[in-house]
Amino acid sequence: MSKQMKAAILLEPGKIELQNRNIPIPASNEVLIKVQSVGLCGSDVHYYQHGRIGNFIVERPIILGHESSGEIVEIGSKVKHLKIGQRVTVEPGVTCGVCEFCKSGKYNLCPEVEFLATPPYDGAFCEYIAIRSDFVFPIPDEMSFDEAAMAEPISVGIHAMRRGRLQAGETVVIMGMGPIGMLSAVVAHLSGASKIIGVDFEESRLELSKKMGITDTVNLKNENLAERIAEITDGKNVDLALETAGNAKALQSAFTSVKRGGRVVIVGLPPEDVATLNINEIVGGEIDIFGVFRYSNTYQTAIDMIAQCKVAGIELKNMMTHYYSLDETKEAFEKAISDRTNAIKVMIRP
Amino acid sequence: MSKQMKAAILLEPGKIELQNRNIPIPASNEVLIKVQSVGLCGSDVHYYQHGRIGNFIVERPIILGHESSGEIVEIGSKVKHLKIGQRVTVEPGVTCGVCEFCKSGKYNLCPEVEFLATPPYDGAFCEYIAIRSDFVFPIPDEMSFDEAAMAEPISVGIHAMRRGRLQAGETVVIMGMGPIGMLSAVVAHLSGASKIIGVDFEESRLELSKKMGITDTVNLKNENLAERIAEITDGKNVDLALETAGNAKALQSAFTSVKRGGRVVIVGLPPEDVATLNINEIVGGEIDIFGVFRYSNTYQTAIDMIAQCKVAGIELKNMMTHYYSLDETKEAFEKAISDRTNAIKVMIRP
Amino acid sequence: MSKQMKAAILLEPGKIELQNRNIPIPASNEVLIKVQSVGLCGSDVHYYQHGRIGNFIVERPIILGHESSGEIVEIGSKVKHLKIGQRVTVEPGVTCGVCEFCKSGKYNLCPEVEFLATPPYDGAFCEYIAIRSDFVFPIPDEMSFDEAAMAEPISVGIHAMRRGRLQAGETVVIMGMGPIGMLSAVVAHLSGASKIIGVDFEESRLELSKKMGITDTVNLKNENLAERIAEITDGKNVDLALETAGNAKALQSAFTSVKRGGRVVIVGLPPEDVATLNINEIVGGEIDIFGVFRYSNTYQTAIDMIAQCKVAGIELKNMMTHYYSLDETKEAFEKAISDRTNAIKVMIRP
Amino acid sequence: MSKQMKAAILLEPGKIELQNRNIPIPASNEVLIKVQSVGLCGSDVHYYQHGRIGNFIVERPIILGHESSGEIVEIGSKVKHLKIGQRVTVEPGVTCGVCEFCKSGKYNLCPEVEFLATPPYDGAFCEYIAIRSDFVFPIPDEMSFDEAAMAEPISVGIHAMRRGRLQAGETVVIMGMGPIGMLSAVVAHLSGASKIIGVDFEESRLELSKKMGITDTVNLKNENLAERIAEITDGKNVDLALETAGNAKALQSAFTSVKRGGRVVIVGLPPEDVATLNINEIVGGEIDIFGVFRYSNTYQTAIDMIAQCKVAGIELKNMMTHYYSLDETKEAFEKAISDRTNAIKVMIRP
Repeated sequence: MSKQMKAAILLEPGKIELQNRNIPIPASNEVLIKVQSVGLCGSDVHYYQHGRIGNFIVERPIILGHESSGEIVEIGSKVKHLKIGQRVTVEPGVTCGVCEFCKSGKYNLCPEVEFLATPPYDGAFCEYIAIRSDFVFPIPDEMSFDEAAMAEPISVGIHAMRRGRLQAGETVVIMGMGPIGMLSAVVAHLSGASKIIGVDFEESRLELSKKMGITDTVNLKNENLAERIAEITDGKNVDLALETAGNAKALQSAFTSVKRGGRVVIVGLPPEDVATLNINEIVGGEIDIFGVFRYSNTYQTAIDMIAQCKVAGIELKNMMTHYYSLDETKEAFEKAISDRTNAIKVMIRP
Repeated sequence: MSKQMKAAILLEPGKIELQNRNIPIPASNEVLIKVQSVGLCGSDVHYYQHGRIGNFIVERPIILGHESSGEIVEIGSKVKHLKIGQRVTVEPGVTCGVCEFCKSGKYNLCPEVEFLATPPYDGAFCEYIAIRSDFVFPIPDEMSFDEAAMAEPISVGIHAMRRGRLQAGETVVIMGMGPIGMLSAVVAHLSGASKIIGVDFEESRLELSKKMGITDTVNLKNENLAERIAEITDGKNVDLALETAGNAKALQSAFTSVKRGGRVVIVGLPPEDVATLNINEIVGGEIDIFGVFRYSNTYQTAIDMIAQCKVAGIELKNMMTHYYSLDETKEAFEKAISDRTNAIKVMIRP
Repeated sequence: MSKQMKAAILLEPGKIELQNRNIPIPASNEVLIKVQSVGLCGSDVHYYQHGRIGNFIVERPIILGHESSGEIVEIGSKVKHLKIGQRVTVEPGVTCGVCEFCKSGKYNLCPEVEFLATPPYDGAFCEYIAIRSDFVFPIPDEMSFDEAAMAEPISVGIHAMRRGRLQAGETVVIMGMGPIGMLSAVVAHLSGASKIIGVDFEESRLELSKKMGITDTVNLKNENLAERIAEITDGKNVDLALETAGNAKALQSAFTSVKRGGRVVIVGLPPEDVATLNINEIVGGEIDIFGVFRYSNTYQTAIDMIAQCKVAGIELKNMMTHYYSLDETKEAFEKAISDRTNAIKVMIRP
Repeated sequence: MSKQMKAAILLEPGKIELQNRNIPIPASNEVLIKVQSVGLCGSDVHYYQHGRIGNFIVERPIILGHESSGEIVEIGSKVKHLKIGQRVTVEPGVTCGVCEFCKSGKYNLCPEVEFLATPPYDGAFCEYIAIRSDFVFPIPDEMSFDEAAMAEPISVGIHAMRRGRLQAGETVVIMGMGPIGMLSAVVAHLSGASKIIGVDFEESRLELSKKMGITDTVNLKNENLAERIAEITDGKNVDLALETAGNAKALQSAFTSVKRGGRVVIVGLPPEDVATLNINEIVGGEIDIFGVFRYSNTYQTAIDMIAQCKVAGIELKNMMTHYYSLDETKEAFEKAISDRTNAIKVMIRP
């Protein structure tokens, strides 16, 4: 094996270059993975365009990409449950294991987490990554690397539905038919939700979402949300609303869509950070609201659910609209930016 | 409408006779239902054979049957949310509404409940029943009366899976492939369980169960349960075990099948009432155990799930192995008793 | 018993008059109670001043007052668990018992509830009230009628702490040291909270609150909340924040006071209905938010907790700052309005 | 500091000898603690007498003792949150941090745990121990080392009450007034339980338990449990039963003491491993049963609760009936064995 690999380096906003880097050497509790597929996430695009997300600032060249799968090519001396040659998917946040959050099962809140492609940590738009072995999960033979890379974004959907305590038979509305919205629909469908209403402005996304578990759609361009929700739910409103669109208006609509005693789960971040909410609605209706930050303890379920998709007639590759090689990483970003309507999930295959 | 109706009366154990009875007159908060389909339950058979179940004793002639659906033919003066002509399914336990159990959402534990076909209350093997309107649920046009009658036994499965806190992606073993076991498999499947293992002695039941959501089977006649569970779950054991077989050995097997921190749900009653359990297993493995008695707040979900079955490729009528008219009620009971292997769910259509 | 009684009637905003009314005749499932003590609630004051709260409008003369206790003087024919002469406290919202909320244990969300002193239903500022017997709870001999009337506002605190999933050993901040804030502190104390931080602008209220379970106080007039919270919690922030002050700024402060993964419970309604919240804080910190509307299944616990107060060295009568007779109802209201600083809980004793 | 220390070594059942051992050298993520107080646990006594507990077998000389407190005298190079001189209590089970149990907050089920005084791992009946820093918790100045050592057994009580979902205002029965029973009573009291019934055969233990939070006692020598429970709870039975006595009969009594929908928590292990339970009771009463194995995420709460005891008028030292030096370790064991009635908690102070 060569000691050098290719990596797509973000040098400054808008500027990505393919450079040589040393292939990382796995520590005793790590494995080295030859990366086979990496999904492009909205956060990658945001770093590419703006060089920062909130307090996370790209201060030196960084490798982006955190939705990755690949093959194990080397294992650390203490790793026992994995072996060379295994096809795997990678959970990208390595946690400390000893803080109160890690110990109580909420390791997504660990303040010491080292998360791929979140400054200052490098990500997976490169040929090889080394990562602690407990964040590496074998996948079934019949699962493609592209599908396996989806374990990351579908984990957000799993965590969102768990946080929102979705029960089989309940009704759900999802604001925003981007990748997170659609994959949350997949999770809701596999979890037995009886109605899963997708809301967006783009007809093409709404059409696609019907293949991903959405049972009813509302196009805000020409339909009245409250009327449609009433119509679909016999005037009862939904049990659970999920906001993935990242804007204040969508969030407000989430509240008006749930029944008394209903639940609102928030994944999307509005660009202005804040939203004005009707507190009377929350108090009088005794609404539960749950913020969602990444995920924890989802990866095995994610793999199982991706496998279940086939049985349920859901093809995740319908969402993967564009594929690029590692050399074309810059083109992949530009596509994601210039064609937001059609580019649902852009994949890099190193 | 005639003032008299036909009813199948259990006069004494083993003796059922078709007699004329007055058609009940619905109170102001009740509706009168023309019964269209009623499933025969194991408890009906038990009353037919033994005249009692535990402390519930048949002391005077009784009409059995509590898994019923039909059409509303008359409504009480205060009933507003239902109307004549609606096709409905009937939740058979009328509760007091004011005790601590009713008020806290566990109305299945109401000590004042009046449950169809539980002495001294008459059931639904007759042409008409009157029942409080809040226990009557409209069904979709495309749902058959036979399917709608299944809302009762599937409610046991829904309640069992809720009590057992089944989460999408988890693994389940179900002891006993009778109607409750199979309908619990349906619920687990619709709720996103990744593996649903069915356990029984009868190959024909195990075969049928594969059409009802079971993913893997264990025939205790010729297979070792522990080995098979290990094989199917990669040595991890299951998250949740459900005991519906009603015998102590099956219950003990449930405990050896779950992983540390796993959950055991008990629906089945062993004939001898007691079972000897390994307390070290429960304590050292930190097992949760949940008893299940009937159900509460399940009917709308039951109807939704029966409707979802079609989409999921599950045909409930595969379980309904025999049909009889009201005149043939005695034959129906005799069939259920004499052919336990093949008679899964016997239906009466008045 | 005379057929007529005295009642304090709100004729129009600001105008209360003592008039004669017929003593109500209890229905078969009701009891008649001779009212002994009634607390004046903020909502009573709001109706007195403005003639409405949100959509609830006083359209005809009304009797206010819903925090009441008294003695049973007559019982309906079907009432079996109560008897004449019992000293009792009264849960003021009579629910339908048959809607999905009532059946699932969330009867506080029942859309058909008839709530004392909420238009168009009369309340308890009068000599006698009749109410359904399942909302009437006997109290111990050693509990005063004034204390028993506190079962209503302390129920809000119990429900708030249940909704907020308070666990023994956790830390709590409470915004607003009015009666609900103080009684929530009592509940948090009895539930084993290790730190209970009271926040207000009024030193006298903060002082009083220290007798009601508050362990640390923050006076917003001259202290920085964030600094004080950090100081008291060793920089960890609190597990649970409760907003009872009813203003947007207090609510925003609640969010900045909780730790990652913390919980915010909202009881107070801001006068402008809305508040601008930082969604990044909610999502990035994975905050849970719970609206609280009245309460359900709290009354027996409320009575037990009022009794426990003595053992824990908490005297509820410290909160009851003023007492009036029924004739003086108008004066009671004027006192509550004119002396908000000192009038914590004003009691009417008919 | 000398390189050698004294340690009480169990050479074979019944034979303890004071020997010199090397003082352990803390690894980079460990601290070295000068042991000040160690409680003698029932499991220590069991190893002393029988040389094994279930599958854990003493195969080579071992140091017993796992309820320990002391002072930090040295810290590893990577330890940042602790410092030399701090007074601390020690959580005795060092977990792997990477298995599914550790990651999901149930680290007490970690199969790789290294638990003090559980073969083959040495315990704390010695002068110094080294342990991973995330299992070491500073204590307040005013807390004695003896009290701090109680953080371990009270953790069992905290975990038991959490597993049993105890809510403020509920009623509890505890079978067995040994140290775990009494400390669980302390936890129940601090958590707001309204009735806490202690059950035992020994009057002296029952008497002592009244100082530890028990509100009512039942002496099985001369009282009928069912009658007393009915008397104390107005015929309602309790919400929660905790079995700590470790015998099948006590466990059966736990079931007959809870109300419908009640919960039974099992800590005690019967010597014969098994118990015969009435399944009809569990199913018909819809009982929840929770096994309890050690604890997780309890230590900070344990320290807070020990501190709260003073405010609540509970003196933990009432339970500490005998004190010995490290030289007298053998005598301590013999006392615990020979005087089970009076020796509640025996302490070793190295």
